[in-house]
Amino acid sequence: MKDFVDSCVFFLREEFKQRGFKKGVLGLSGGIDSAVVAALGVLALGSENLKVLLMPSKSSSSIHFDDALNLAQNLHLTSQVVNLEGFQSHFAAQTGLEGSLDDRQKLRMGNFCARLRMALLYDYASAENALVLGTSNKSELMLGYGTIFGDLACAINPIGSLYKTQIFTLAKTLNLPQNLIDKKPSADLFANQSDEYDLGYSYEDIDAFLVCFENLGGLKARQKDERDCIQRTLESRGFAHQMTNSLCKRIWANAFKRTMPSVFAFSRPFCTPHQ
Amino acid sequence: MKDFVDSCVFFLREEFKQRGFKKGVLGLSGGIDSAVVAALGVLALGSENLKVLLMPSKSSSSIHFDDALNLAQNLHLTSQVVNLEGFQSHFAAQTGLEGSLDDRQKLRMGNFCARLRMALLYDYASAENALVLGTSNKSELMLGYGTIFGDLACAINPIGSLYKTQIFTLAKTLNLPQNLIDKKPSADLFANQSDEYDLGYSYEDIDAFLVCFENLGGLKARQKDERDCIQRTLESRGFAHQMTNSLCKRIWANAFKRTMPSVFAFSRPFCTPHQ
Repeated sequence: MKDFVDSCVFFLREEFKQRGFKKGVLGLSGGIDSAVVAALGVLALGSENLKVLLMPSKSSSSIHFDDALNLAQNLHLTSQVVNLEGFQSHFAAQTGLEGSLDDRQKLRMGNFCARLRMALLYDYASAENALVLGTSNKSELMLGYGTIFGDLACAINPIGSLYKTQIFTLAKTLNLPQNLIDKKPSADLFANQSDEYDLGYSYEDIDAFLVCFENLGGLKARQKDERDCIQRTLESRGFAHQMTNSLCKRIWANAFKRTMPSVFAFSRPFCTPHQ
Repeated sequence: MKDFVDSCVFFLREEFKQRGFKKGVLGLSGGIDSAVVAALGVLALGSENLKVLLMPSKSSSSIHFDDALNLAQNLHLTSQVVNLEGFQSHFAAQTGLEGSLDDRQKLRMGNFCARLRMALLYDYASAENALVLGTSNKSELMLGYGTIFGDLACAINPIGSLYKTQIFTLAKTLNLPQNLIDKKPSADLFANQSDEYDLGYSYEDIDAFLVCFENLGGLKARQKDERDCIQRTLESRGFAHQMTNSLCKRIWANAFKRTMPSVFAFSRPFCTPHQ
């Protein structure tokens, strides 16, 4: 893990230099992923060049908020709090998402908050000449467990090649507080959300599956027969039918979150602009 | 242009079918790009399956708003108006962007509105099982003249391979109202904004430049000497030094808007999750 930290710090410094930036900004949620990115950011840029925004929503847990605030203090980071409640009330009034919400409506509100956080981070970045650091890990990126143009949006993501289970190891290497490491992973889109409940399996099982899935070329499989073959191979390697089915479905259905938008490419030039 | 329309309609139908969607949604600004996309959307999906959102901000011109409303009526589209003013007041209070704003602050407010529109479109898409149609043309995409994770964000972009000057021709083919075609192009991020003023040149000149730039491999050029060579070639083809310099700089500086975020890829596997 020490190797990872050194290489990542070098990568971040090079990326910032090449792009002509000194400062970074990220959203601190109180979870382990953003904590790890903040610690790496401090090592690469210095705490004076890293800013964290805390953007709690109506449903955010105060425990996560306090943890985020404490971490910012421990890392000597300037933090700014932007409460999303006012934006949410306005959004609720415009969309009718008021009163008690069902699961789908809670998810819509959560996605709105994730995109609002992105907009606030990018506004800070624009005002202060900073780059937005992303905090999605490899498990989330592969599963598409994140909000497109929300928390998945960033300039540079230092931890996108680490599975969630590796993030815990990295957090120990970086001496992050034990309570952050012990906390149950949650996207915190709505109250009491749990990643492992949403996904149906523990991250330990999921990551073992994802390693195998990627080694089999699952991310690149487009055709039905190719995908069927990968599913059968995964089952023959000992992954239960139901888990294989559920995770494969999720990964392939969310492929759009890992690419740029589809652009219609017209192949015959019909009226090329004047040259 | 008839060929383009037929192919594009076929492309849209196939994309929607493959992704399992029937409905589309887009933001109608009153400009020509979103008008063209709306017309193509109607041909591909039927007006009963296309919804348009009108999301005027504090600084939006009422002329654009009326044009958008009229177009929605002409195309028999259901439209919904979401006024951004309340969100903007809240954003202004949180960020201090109040009172009279300088140019950079106006741009920040405009970018915030663009991202908010994206969040509202994606919320509608989620509530109604629809796909968000993008409205950026090729000139904008190449120049990076758009808000990343704002108006540049979408599921499918039908017009991203057409230069702005070609959009005008397409608008005529689609029988769009003449006043939309005659209107001065504007991103409408702030009052009286003009694309051609911002960019410094007319779209006719810009598009001729972009065609040549792309043919020379400009979009793929990464190294300084390669880029210098392309600039010299463009000048030898008759493009003025100042224009070449200004547009090349813009295209290369905005390359990040045309790719996915940079993810640090750690090459040595150090603690593969359990298999």
